[in-house]
Amino acid sequence: MRYLTAGESHGPQLTLIIEGLPSQLPFSKEKVDEQLKRRQGGYGRGRRMQIESDEVQILSGVRFGKTTGAPVTLVIENKDWTHWKKVMSPHPDEEKAEKRRLSRPRPGHADLNGALKYGHRDLRDVLERSSARETAARVAAGAVARQILELCGIRIAGHVVRIGSVGAERVTDLSVEEIAKRSEASPVRCLDPEAEKRMIELIDETKKEGDTLGGVVEVVLENVPPGLGSHVHWDRKLDARIAQAVMSIQAFKGVEIGIGFEAAERKGSQVHDEILWSEEKGYHRRTNRLGGFEGGMTTGEPIVVRGVMKPIPTLYKPLKSVDIDTREPFEASIERSDNCAVPAASVVAENVVAWEVANALLEKFSSDTADELVREVNRYLQEVKEF
Amino acid sequence: MRYLTAGESHGPQLTLIIEGLPSQLPFSKEKVDEQLKRRQGGYGRGRRMQIESDEVQILSGVRFGKTTGAPVTLVIENKDWTHWKKVMSPHPDEEKAEKRRLSRPRPGHADLNGALKYGHRDLRDVLERSSARETAARVAAGAVARQILELCGIRIAGHVVRIGSVGAERVTDLSVEEIAKRSEASPVRCLDPEAEKRMIELIDETKKEGDTLGGVVEVVLENVPPGLGSHVHWDRKLDARIAQAVMSIQAFKGVEIGIGFEAAERKGSQVHDEILWSEEKGYHRRTNRLGGFEGGMTTGEPIVVRGVMKPIPTLYKPLKSVDIDTREPFEASIERSDNCAVPAASVVAENVVAWEVANALLEKFSSDTADELVREVNRYLQEVKEF
Amino acid sequence: MRYLTAGESHGPQLTLIIEGLPSQLPFSKEKVDEQLKRRQGGYGRGRRMQIESDEVQILSGVRFGKTTGAPVTLVIENKDWTHWKKVMSPHPDEEKAEKRRLSRPRPGHADLNGALKYGHRDLRDVLERSSARETAARVAAGAVARQILELCGIRIAGHVVRIGSVGAERVTDLSVEEIAKRSEASPVRCLDPEAEKRMIELIDETKKEGDTLGGVVEVVLENVPPGLGSHVHWDRKLDARIAQAVMSIQAFKGVEIGIGFEAAERKGSQVHDEILWSEEKGYHRRTNRLGGFEGGMTTGEPIVVRGVMKPIPTLYKPLKSVDIDTREPFEASIERSDNCAVPAASVVAENVVAWEVANALLEKFSSDTADELVREVNRYLQEVKEF
Amino acid sequence: MRYLTAGESHGPQLTLIIEGLPSQLPFSKEKVDEQLKRRQGGYGRGRRMQIESDEVQILSGVRFGKTTGAPVTLVIENKDWTHWKKVMSPHPDEEKAEKRRLSRPRPGHADLNGALKYGHRDLRDVLERSSARETAARVAAGAVARQILELCGIRIAGHVVRIGSVGAERVTDLSVEEIAKRSEASPVRCLDPEAEKRMIELIDETKKEGDTLGGVVEVVLENVPPGLGSHVHWDRKLDARIAQAVMSIQAFKGVEIGIGFEAAERKGSQVHDEILWSEEKGYHRRTNRLGGFEGGMTTGEPIVVRGVMKPIPTLYKPLKSVDIDTREPFEASIERSDNCAVPAASVVAENVVAWEVANALLEKFSSDTADELVREVNRYLQEVKEF
Repeated sequence: MRYLTAGESHGPQLTLIIEGLPSQLPFSKEKVDEQLKRRQGGYGRGRRMQIESDEVQILSGVRFGKTTGAPVTLVIENKDWTHWKKVMSPHPDEEKAEKRRLSRPRPGHADLNGALKYGHRDLRDVLERSSARETAARVAAGAVARQILELCGIRIAGHVVRIGSVGAERVTDLSVEEIAKRSEASPVRCLDPEAEKRMIELIDETKKEGDTLGGVVEVVLENVPPGLGSHVHWDRKLDARIAQAVMSIQAFKGVEIGIGFEAAERKGSQVHDEILWSEEKGYHRRTNRLGGFEGGMTTGEPIVVRGVMKPIPTLYKPLKSVDIDTREPFEASIERSDNCAVPAASVVAENVVAWEVANALLEKFSSDTADELVREVNRYLQEVKEF
Repeated sequence: MRYLTAGESHGPQLTLIIEGLPSQLPFSKEKVDEQLKRRQGGYGRGRRMQIESDEVQILSGVRFGKTTGAPVTLVIENKDWTHWKKVMSPHPDEEKAEKRRLSRPRPGHADLNGALKYGHRDLRDVLERSSARETAARVAAGAVARQILELCGIRIAGHVVRIGSVGAERVTDLSVEEIAKRSEASPVRCLDPEAEKRMIELIDETKKEGDTLGGVVEVVLENVPPGLGSHVHWDRKLDARIAQAVMSIQAFKGVEIGIGFEAAERKGSQVHDEILWSEEKGYHRRTNRLGGFEGGMTTGEPIVVRGVMKPIPTLYKPLKSVDIDTREPFEASIERSDNCAVPAASVVAENVVAWEVANALLEKFSSDTADELVREVNRYLQEVKEF
Repeated sequence: MRYLTAGESHGPQLTLIIEGLPSQLPFSKEKVDEQLKRRQGGYGRGRRMQIESDEVQILSGVRFGKTTGAPVTLVIENKDWTHWKKVMSPHPDEEKAEKRRLSRPRPGHADLNGALKYGHRDLRDVLERSSARETAARVAAGAVARQILELCGIRIAGHVVRIGSVGAERVTDLSVEEIAKRSEASPVRCLDPEAEKRMIELIDETKKEGDTLGGVVEVVLENVPPGLGSHVHWDRKLDARIAQAVMSIQAFKGVEIGIGFEAAERKGSQVHDEILWSEEKGYHRRTNRLGGFEGGMTTGEPIVVRGVMKPIPTLYKPLKSVDIDTREPFEASIERSDNCAVPAASVVAENVVAWEVANALLEKFSSDTADELVREVNRYLQEVKEF
Repeated sequence: MRYLTAGESHGPQLTLIIEGLPSQLPFSKEKVDEQLKRRQGGYGRGRRMQIESDEVQILSGVRFGKTTGAPVTLVIENKDWTHWKKVMSPHPDEEKAEKRRLSRPRPGHADLNGALKYGHRDLRDVLERSSARETAARVAAGAVARQILELCGIRIAGHVVRIGSVGAERVTDLSVEEIAKRSEASPVRCLDPEAEKRMIELIDETKKEGDTLGGVVEVVLENVPPGLGSHVHWDRKLDARIAQAVMSIQAFKGVEIGIGFEAAERKGSQVHDEILWSEEKGYHRRTNRLGGFEGGMTTGEPIVVRGVMKPIPTLYKPLKSVDIDTREPFEASIERSDNCAVPAASVVAENVVAWEVANALLEKFSSDTADELVREVNRYLQEVKEF
């Protein structure tokens, strides 16, 4: 399975082509729209999120509610495109163009690097694509991948474990269903009601200060078959692929699996997960500190991945930068009013992880049709139990 | 540039084929051997490391000390192969085989998952390949990549910033040259002499307890051109590719860029790097909290990557597991005597990061020959300065 | 550079995403539309081609007539989509669907194999995607690649060298410009006026008989730098990549480079191209029997590729097949009125070859910006001349 | 499944790493050696072929006669390496080197293009890798792939259908077993005894004239499941991948499937294969003119692929060329004594096609273990029969 995304933040639309899906996969537009909606929510978002209620159009690869095996095209329109037609015109006609050239690179964005790389004197030619708007397309891809996971009985949820100085209590005994339910009910997607309260206060305070907040999100998958990914070659390790996927989300600066960085501080006897066997469960682990991975392969225990998002760089409290026309310093301008996008980022993280796991399923099992896939997953799970 | 590695821990050799190198690249066997030697050192390693002094044989792609553009084959022999010939025989002849079948999966290793995935009843068929021995081949690949970096004026060094409960002071004002020098002089590859002392004590104590230690390593690259990687598509972001490379090192559970997870706790005004311009330096940053990346592209500031290694799972203090023949519990056996491999892991991390950065250079610039590459890098750096 | 295409023959649109284009590349919608129009012409096409005048919409990656480096989205609408909305509906709503299920696989099409592979009981779920309608998207990709070629001074043209029993005289002394001009002026894209006349007669006759015709097309590229592709690994040979691209065109059954299959019948002394040198031209060849390739790399002489297209399988003269519902034999039905698509296929062939050559250029040279690419190509051509 | 090959014609060895094989696959060294031996035979080969009797060493990925799932390393030593040690030394030490620099590019070889591309003033740095010696490694890869095919009941054979002016009668009613048997028994691998005789005469005559011969080879696979490859995206079409694989063989200039170029001359009613159904065979075809492919997917009928090899360029009858040091013309030198390598090329072609088909099997079916693969292929064949 592979996909390409395209589209600018203020262009007409985001476009996504997914190639390599099984045929006969039940495909629900509503389930894609639901993920898009979840991405737009969360305490701390600014107005644009409320204006645009993203919705997907299905333009290929699906017929009568099922995939055909052909590439699936999904389009998400940008609702305010009409206001940007002249600024973002693809056509060379000078009269119809309204350049609104940007020459002031914002710290913390791709603006300057992208301009140097691609030779752009108008920074808009960088920022329109580097914008986190693109994550809507990746969420749509993940929303399709989730329908594969669902069919195979794999459940997934995400939640926020830190916003700025406020960390939530680590929760390890909740089912994914419960995590999903509680996260969904929280404006900051936090499972810990006490932390939730303080997070909201912190967001409000920080907004008043004209500052912004980052945080840490966690994604959990349950009921994952063991043996996805492979130890035999480094680039087939699934945990590492997930690391790439999470790190590639706009503004993410770190990723960890299971206890992650905490593993450095513990002794070996406090890190590894003892192996048990029972009639009912087959092989399983007493604990899940390694977050569902050993040797780059799933263990069958829940996958637990965390990623850190830096605070949004656009600031009321401006940062110094340099105009590329004059090379004179200025203070970086404000473009929007979000001051915390961490709850939304947890939705993005869920969906990019969903993609990687679904892809690993398709690689491991016969999957030209959804039926084959389900049958093969079940056959394998039975064999694993009897191993 | 791409490569495949092959070879088992107790097989005859590790083999590495690198395809896509520029021609005319000065190729020093000594520089590869040097990296292999660095990988074998470090306080806390067991005896095997002293027995085997790894050395590379060049079997293709290099003539009279320069690459030809053809695939390069590097081989690292396993010195104790003679003792394992019968156990690891490729041939089906039953009489010559000595099976020494393993049925007891070790927690924290690929043993059980790999057996379930690949249908192995002899766990040796998993562990021989999942072993960290394979990192020698990846270090060799990185050692070749370093010769590209060197030619382009990019410097790289790695060091240890934490072992178990002992963290080193964060150092931000040292040159890469200085980091390399100090790290090389320290038995635990730590820049902070005070921490070094405590790390060594901790290793000794923990060994007595029969326990093991993990830690955090940091890799720094200096003089990197801006604009490596790209913001235009998620899978071209160089920071994310580095994340995959680091996470794929055996026993790594997390990776972060710049201030990484700390970014979650700081406010936006304390995270981003202000942009400056001067005649001498061109565009540069006041700080480098983002570790040399914005928008998935290098900024021209030093790349700073950290990875966390979990403690070695093989333990004197045994962990519970289950025999796959009998499904009876047992206590996991001891196979070796290292109790801390973090210094060595920092060398591995350096080399896998070197590969990714060198690869990004080759993608960005004409590079059929080393001369073209150098000329193009310099041309670009000049343009960037005049931008 | 990579691309994905999507879209069904009777769906709303074809969609194309191209990722990896240089920035600042002049991007002309008109030049894409021109190629689409060329694909729709040619003597022997049926009515549908006249109804639909394909046109491209640019939905990302281009601003004010130049690429930005971001992925380019191109859409080609299917003009008769309104009549197919219910038949091709993506939605599961039974009431709005009009199934028009097909159970009769046509010989010579993907119908049956695709149904077996993807488990489709409605053959429409195969044929909508396997249709040659998809080549419009590939032509659009090629039309973008041509703009890269043009910038680098590489010229390309295609023509028809055989339709059914009528072969054209082999022409070897025409410039690409001349080939393009004459081919464009011919209703069957044939350079030989005598053959042209007989081809047209043959098409008319064959139509009366209710039969169809295939043929052979040739693509020629001039002014190609030597050294595109590489001999060092089999999958980097450019002639072989071109072979894949041409063979993947719907209904193509063979591909050859230079004198191709004729090389089997000649002796060695009549096959190879002697090497000459002159002040004006540098290294060049006395002849070009090998069609611009030696060792999987371009020689600098014109690239000459030919592909064979089988006759259109849909027939007035029906072929026997078996209904998949009843397993009863039937005679395969007629769906359209083309009886010779060879002239159009020559346009498709041109464009898929253009893509491969442009891609090889981008791989060889610095190409984040179009300026860099042009400068590097010229620098290299100069070096080659002075070699 | 993927592989890399490395090694020079006069270097110490050829090296092959195959990554992605199923585990538990019976792996026979003898079967690999058998293919290597077949590659070395054939009427018309010179002395080197008799000196070197290629044999493979297995250096990873196989234990006790079965694959483990880990990458497989195969090495083929170059027997005359001892004579070339100084000429091919990887080390920069001037004293130990014996340069034997070549400055005279041979027409029909990669020499000149490779030198221009990679900046080599010593043409040996090109020709050592572009040499057809590399096909031994590809044959070894194919020999491994054949063991997958064998397990799945797919049979493969190759034979020669033309050498120079002598074409064999087209044979369409032989089983693959019979083709293999007869081809093996013929010194020119030709099934037609009359043609065989004339081919041998022609080789002898042409040798006397100091000239060389090319030819056409055919590969046939039987018992291939339908639905390998896919129509949904151009780069997944298996016939096109096979075209790339065949065209990438040294000296190949064309490839065709089924009736191939003949399809251009026939009318549609004489090209397509009518679909039948019977209790015993399920869906099948009356004829197999399309060579086992429709829509880029296998039909279940035999795969029939032909490739054309140009005559060996090294000639007793010398061709004109230009010395790159002096730019003075010379007559191209003689390096070896083969004058027809077509029978050997048919073995190479078999093996590269075997790889592509085996790879398509692994993509379609669960294949972490050989058992899973076989079970899934059988399950699918049953379903296809009952479709």
